Amino acid sequence: MSLLTVGTVAFDQIETPFGKEDKIVGGAATYISLAASYFAEKINLVSVVGDDFPVAELDYLKSKGIDLEGLQIKNGERSFFWAGRYHENMNQRDTLDTQLNVLADFDPVLPENYKDSDFVMLGNLTPSVQMRVIEQMNPRPKFVAMDTMNFWMDTALDSLLEVLKKIDALLINDDEARQLSGEYSLVKAAAKILKMGPKYLVIKKGEHGALLFYDDTIFFAPALPLAEVFDPTGAGDTFAGGFVGYLAPSGDLSFENMKRAVIFGSAMASFCVEKFGIRRLKEITQSDIKNRVSKFVQLVNFDAMV
Amino acid sequence: MSLLTVGTVAFDQIETPFGKEDKIVGGAATYISLAASYFAEKINLVSVVGDDFPVAELDYLKSKGIDLEGLQIKNGERSFFWAGRYHENMNQRDTLDTQLNVLADFDPVLPENYKDSDFVMLGNLTPSVQMRVIEQMNPRPKFVAMDTMNFWMDTALDSLLEVLKKIDALLINDDEARQLSGEYSLVKAAAKILKMGPKYLVIKKGEHGALLFYDDTIFFAPALPLAEVFDPTGAGDTFAGGFVGYLAPSGDLSFENMKRAVIFGSAMASFCVEKFGIRRLKEITQSDIKNRVSKFVQLVNFDAMV
Repeated sequence: MSLLTVGTVAFDQIETPFGKEDKIVGGAATYISLAASYFAEKINLVSVVGDDFPVAELDYLKSKGIDLEGLQIKNGERSFFWAGRYHENMNQRDTLDTQLNVLADFDPVLPENYKDSDFVMLGNLTPSVQMRVIEQMNPRPKFVAMDTMNFWMDTALDSLLEVLKKIDALLINDDEARQLSGEYSLVKAAAKILKMGPKYLVIKKGEHGALLFYDDTIFFAPALPLAEVFDPTGAGDTFAGGFVGYLAPSGDLSFENMKRAVIFGSAMASFCVEKFGIRRLKEITQSDIKNRVSKFVQLVNFDAMV
Repeated sequence: MSLLTVGTVAFDQIETPFGKEDKIVGGAATYISLAASYFAEKINLVSVVGDDFPVAELDYLKSKGIDLEGLQIKNGERSFFWAGRYHENMNQRDTLDTQLNVLADFDPVLPENYKDSDFVMLGNLTPSVQMRVIEQMNPRPKFVAMDTMNFWMDTALDSLLEVLKKIDALLINDDEARQLSGEYSLVKAAAKILKMGPKYLVIKKGEHGALLFYDDTIFFAPALPLAEVFDPTGAGDTFAGGFVGYLAPSGDLSFENMKRAVIFGSAMASFCVEKFGIRRLKEITQSDIKNRVSKFVQLVNFDAMV
């Protein structure tokens, strides 16, 4: 089934304890679609870049089966740019610079043949932009997942809450779940958030794994313990891309398949952090993914004998 | 097989966002032996209290099959006392008061019939006291596990490192593993610590679960997501008691059984935090434990189909 991805395609400047990259390709939609491309066959991308964006990078995305008809290229404008520095523990980062550029007045116009996409992954963006995408879909997609962040809870909570009513799955991190719900306990937070609209909630906890909530059921996917984390940028988007990308081909929305999707999302994220930017995501093979998922099985597998 | 537990038996004053208890029974050996009593039949306890310690509490421990011949009762002296206050997130706490009292000159003299205990769990204590216990054992126990804390790394690192050479398993939290190894990555930290002596390393991450390291193998046990955590005091000791208590009856030290022991330790810890002090540990039944372990199975169980 077809998958529509909406989000930023951008430049990042990243500094971690392991090094610095001045201007590399990033953006939520880049990570999402690239991760999804290992599973889904037809990926439609909606985003915007300036004419400073390298053609070679766009050609690379196309070569991965990502349709760029929905990517607007604004002549004479510059692409979205983000600069950040990670602390020693890699869990915290400081934003050094954010230049909206083309994103400032982004209107996500969907090409006609995108409107009946079966699966939608809304990357972190202004809630009103996310809503604009949902409104253009016809018929209503089989599955709509979205990401968001604290910033929109602070500045656009009402419109965020409207979007939440329209979606099937929300993917956010633990801090965001706490802020959105006003509950510290993630179990209580999930119960409240599931009443806001989404049927499924994934709470990402970075190096501490991810929780999938559905009704009264909880599934926990660990993060793979890694000796080195070079760059956490894009890990959450890569998780989302692996998650929704895994679901799209079969369209199987059973809880059993959702659990697998969370594991595949975690596996993809575990690759993402091994090198700067999307570099590692460009290298991996289906066999790498299969081996990585096997590691997740080994990591948590036990025979309780009770 | 018999299990020897060494650690504090004490009074705690605990303040959490949910309430305050002025003087309740606590101490590492209390939590360890109580948790272990659900699995192990013969538990030998070595500790020290003052004559202010309630006979009823000692009788209760005896009723759970815990042998108190090794518990020294010092006339005219007072029991160890700790007072602490937890922050809103329950992951941080401030120590408000520590009164060593009887612990100041504690000499852990083992009764003759304790010296051939098969399993030993050394609760967090001065490393030299832990060493004194090991030295009295004859023959060398089948399995020696220990807990320790940052304080001893700061103040008695050399003698701590000597104890590490004598043990089979070290159970510490993530901060402690990082301090002991000087490595932020827990994978790297574990590799270094396993070279210091222990064959097995359990890194406890509180609400984020626990990792078991052995050779190049890692097993991850999640923590059960809980709606309410009333009091985290003793959770780590309860984990240790469940872990070593589960191992003791069979004496099976295979990695498969170690994994189960980590899950049972996690299950016991998940009960501990549900009420103040040891209250919840006093209530639970074998059936509760079985049901709780089943929840851990459900929480992480998935069919990867790869």
